[in-house]
Amino acid sequence: MQENIYHRRLEALRRLMRARGIDAYLVLTDDYHASEYVGDYFKSRAYLSGFTGSAGTLVVTAAEAGLWTDGRYFLQAAEQLQGSGIALRKIGEDMTIPAYLKTLLSSGQCLGYDGRTVRAGYAAQLKNALQQQDIRFDETADLVSELWTDRPPFPAAPVWELPTVYTGKSRSEKLAELRRAMADAGADCHLLAALDDIAWLFNLRGGDVPYNPVFMAYALLTPQETVLYAAPAAFSADLTAALGKDGITLRPYGQIYTDLAALPHGSRVLLDENAVNVALCRALPQDVKRVPGINPTTLCKARKTPAEQENMRLAHIYDGVALTKLLCWLHTQPLSVTELAIADKLESLRAACPDYLGQSFAPIIAAGAHGAIIHYEPTEASNTPLVNNSFLLMDTGAQYWQGTTDVTRTVAIGTLSDEQKTHYTAVLRGHLSLAAAHFKHGCTGVNLDCLARAPLWELGLDYNHGTGHGVGYLLNVHEGPQGIRLRDQNGGAVLEEGMILSDEPGVYFENRYGIRLENLLLCRKAEKTDHGQFMAFDTLTMVPFDRRAIDPAQMSQQELTLLNRYHAAVYQAISPHLTAEERIWLYEATQPL
Amino acid sequence: MQENIYHRRLEALRRLMRARGIDAYLVLTDDYHASEYVGDYFKSRAYLSGFTGSAGTLVVTAAEAGLWTDGRYFLQAAEQLQGSGIALRKIGEDMTIPAYLKTLLSSGQCLGYDGRTVRAGYAAQLKNALQQQDIRFDETADLVSELWTDRPPFPAAPVWELPTVYTGKSRSEKLAELRRAMADAGADCHLLAALDDIAWLFNLRGGDVPYNPVFMAYALLTPQETVLYAAPAAFSADLTAALGKDGITLRPYGQIYTDLAALPHGSRVLLDENAVNVALCRALPQDVKRVPGINPTTLCKARKTPAEQENMRLAHIYDGVALTKLLCWLHTQPLSVTELAIADKLESLRAACPDYLGQSFAPIIAAGAHGAIIHYEPTEASNTPLVNNSFLLMDTGAQYWQGTTDVTRTVAIGTLSDEQKTHYTAVLRGHLSLAAAHFKHGCTGVNLDCLARAPLWELGLDYNHGTGHGVGYLLNVHEGPQGIRLRDQNGGAVLEEGMILSDEPGVYFENRYGIRLENLLLCRKAEKTDHGQFMAFDTLTMVPFDRRAIDPAQMSQQELTLLNRYHAAVYQAISPHLTAEERIWLYEATQPL
Repeated sequence: MQENIYHRRLEALRRLMRARGIDAYLVLTDDYHASEYVGDYFKSRAYLSGFTGSAGTLVVTAAEAGLWTDGRYFLQAAEQLQGSGIALRKIGEDMTIPAYLKTLLSSGQCLGYDGRTVRAGYAAQLKNALQQQDIRFDETADLVSELWTDRPPFPAAPVWELPTVYTGKSRSEKLAELRRAMADAGADCHLLAALDDIAWLFNLRGGDVPYNPVFMAYALLTPQETVLYAAPAAFSADLTAALGKDGITLRPYGQIYTDLAALPHGSRVLLDENAVNVALCRALPQDVKRVPGINPTTLCKARKTPAEQENMRLAHIYDGVALTKLLCWLHTQPLSVTELAIADKLESLRAACPDYLGQSFAPIIAAGAHGAIIHYEPTEASNTPLVNNSFLLMDTGAQYWQGTTDVTRTVAIGTLSDEQKTHYTAVLRGHLSLAAAHFKHGCTGVNLDCLARAPLWELGLDYNHGTGHGVGYLLNVHEGPQGIRLRDQNGGAVLEEGMILSDEPGVYFENRYGIRLENLLLCRKAEKTDHGQFMAFDTLTMVPFDRRAIDPAQMSQQELTLLNRYHAAVYQAISPHLTAEERIWLYEATQPL
Repeated sequence: MQENIYHRRLEALRRLMRARGIDAYLVLTDDYHASEYVGDYFKSRAYLSGFTGSAGTLVVTAAEAGLWTDGRYFLQAAEQLQGSGIALRKIGEDMTIPAYLKTLLSSGQCLGYDGRTVRAGYAAQLKNALQQQDIRFDETADLVSELWTDRPPFPAAPVWELPTVYTGKSRSEKLAELRRAMADAGADCHLLAALDDIAWLFNLRGGDVPYNPVFMAYALLTPQETVLYAAPAAFSADLTAALGKDGITLRPYGQIYTDLAALPHGSRVLLDENAVNVALCRALPQDVKRVPGINPTTLCKARKTPAEQENMRLAHIYDGVALTKLLCWLHTQPLSVTELAIADKLESLRAACPDYLGQSFAPIIAAGAHGAIIHYEPTEASNTPLVNNSFLLMDTGAQYWQGTTDVTRTVAIGTLSDEQKTHYTAVLRGHLSLAAAHFKHGCTGVNLDCLARAPLWELGLDYNHGTGHGVGYLLNVHEGPQGIRLRDQNGGAVLEEGMILSDEPGVYFENRYGIRLENLLLCRKAEKTDHGQFMAFDTLTMVPFDRRAIDPAQMSQQELTLLNRYHAAVYQAISPHLTAEERIWLYEATQPL
């Protein structure tokens, strides 16, 4: 096997490890904020290993190197690691990282990592697993910076204000609520590192992570003080003054560490160990008491304000107009039109809206067999034209002043077989069933997930992903704590009024095609009876399904009614914003079945 | 308020507390084995407080006394505690016991209880909650025995053997499997205290707890030795010899404590802290390492052997014959027939089967408004005749050599209103939907519970109990780890082939009526496809539903098909065992709708 640039980088890393007395070194995927997506500055693991997937951990010793990743990336990682001298370690099949380190490290040896990229909760797990090994931890070893000479600059895009007309709540109100939650938790200080929680709390947005309008920052609250740690140059003088008026002090990003070290003795600091890195925790004085718990902002952020809800409805009409125009246009295209051409067309249709701010994630436009690759993204290398007698799967999303969208439509190309229609119809039935759920308050997504899967299960089919995730408001397209999954941490979060969730069942046949149908749902209160408070969903997304792919004979009367009602709502919402030609197309596309 | 006998017992308890230096004393509901149901010997809390419910904890201090119980028992406890000087503390509304003790006890004070009646896991919770209080724990304070002069004798009914033809697996095989599980867990010793796990493991049954054919015992396993601690007099010479042949040593019940204390230094003992009392844990030498985990027997016991499954099918035909005969008989009875008369008639019909061994729980025969009391049991005092134009709810079960049954039928009495039929039909639809579930292996009951509730939720109705529980084989009618609930510990146990679960949705209207429909389901493997292993249920219970209470117009074609198929199966299984008259009745009762 030929050695490549990653192999040489690995050797350079090993020299640094030897010089510093580190026997095993970890390179994780996180930035300093435990973000799901990270900017280029933080792609150390990709720099060292060549593996570019969104999840993976590199473990290097003098003799071995392994990259741990999950089933989504086994094929990609095997390919990208060739020649690097790094072995692929499959999560779920191979030993876990703590178990591996346990067999590897012996008394007196040293495990190193850059603590800023490791969640406090994960560091605690590692220490717990290795407690009998009597090893040393070097948690301040940023070896990658010493190697990576052409590292991209640390992100510092301008920070901008999201006016209260969009948020429905001023930052003063949010800060007051957060201080009450701190008091309830018995804390006199609160450390925030989650970028979307910080953006939400201060009604600010930035551009430091692709697709996620957040900015690099920490926040520290006491009953008296609110300090925001971020790049001062990213804030205009006006914005700095506006924050000052609200009692918010701006300090340089890196100063958080010295300020944490100077906290008064005996402080009780509320912090979420899964959202705060271990370097921040190490900076705290010894006698500071940690009050663990999910950031109160996480739940507040998930429950959209009435203003956010109304804005989100509007954003989904903007987005529905662009998508409907795309579907109508697609109808007239030859088979030779490519995935990237469709992505460009959709982007231009969305950009026609004056309130459009950009994409909310990298668009998935997948023709034929590409649709079966759940995380497919068309590139110049993979780009293909439409595949006849198959499907085109399009999972895309946008950011508007009025909120974030995420929508998947799968479209029939050419003539579908009965089997293809059966698959599309089963996915649609599951999608409609979840959207129509009428349930008791107290349920979590774990209770409802099977509604979306049941029609597929009837056919011996299933999909290897969750059914739904929370969605931010002009923020991250994946947002907690709610979700719709078969299993979830602590049983999952109770579904509350104002939460937004995706409803996206699918079915995938390797080397053949994939089908996924996704709308966003807004959770609302339904009636309250002697038996309790009931809940239901409103569908936000307004884009027709593909009637040509549906076999109505496989749907119950109730399911047909749900579909026909949805299509009538789509026509009503979208048709006023179309050309005459498009309107005729939509009229046909939304006729009752 | 008049003081009563319980008030005097409380004062006597306080004198003993003072003499022993105990500031707060706990009296729990458990026997020494964390059993759900306990024999009369263990009803200390009822002896002291007068409250006879199946769940409740008494906390006594010099100045106060409180009884904590849950929503099922608020009314009953309030009544039974009158004049006792004991305050009712409502779980979910009032402070928890640990929180109460935290406010109450100060440095140097003493909390006492009989450690044999307290699970190790609960004792650990108490100690954790009170760790900042610096108090003493007296865990050997059996004060009730000193007061309770006419205490019933310690149970020691004869122990009998359940032949392999019924269990499908010899105790040698079970012991060998358990030793493999011990080795896998890294344990060289295993302490068992759960009575049903012990009865299952040794293929033995007893009569020490009403309805539950278990016997008072502990078991201690090492790779070499199997010791059963129980009353020697409860074992015949033949049985003792048979156990000896299988390498099982019988020792007196109380000797477990001295034997635990004599375990070799450094032993690694597998024990379930929620199934072992804290006195047993205290008996272990200091340097013994506890290996925590659910008893491996719990999961093995839940997955019935093929022989047990076939036997269970037979038991349900025996039971279906008795129930069908009862329903036919009931049809001819005047409105004056009482709940107790119906219970007696059913008992005599079941007893006609030569393999019948007794009831599996106290029968619930509830006319009219009594049906809305979920844990109603008719007594001489409460006994009423049928209520016209209402329902009769009957939740009963039996023990046979071939297994345990648990079945609920709700029967129309007189003419039902449309609303009553709507309620019955909704419960039936939910029941049928769960029984017909076709799901992916890996699901737990938390994923499926909503299938049974959805038709009620549609109407703004719900029930405040779980949908299903596991059922033993000629053992406890409630058995873990599986269940069908909206929330469960650790997300619930995965539903595995051979597990038996009840399917019992209901709806309750206070002072009006209650409806519950319950069959037992056997979980089995369905097809395996590229998308995974699928699972389904077979219905074991064979008793018709009440066609007169069903509104077919509210059922989908699919639901009607499920009902009609079930009724055809009932007729086929039960009709050969009926008189001509009964057969004609059943034929009518199972006609398709």
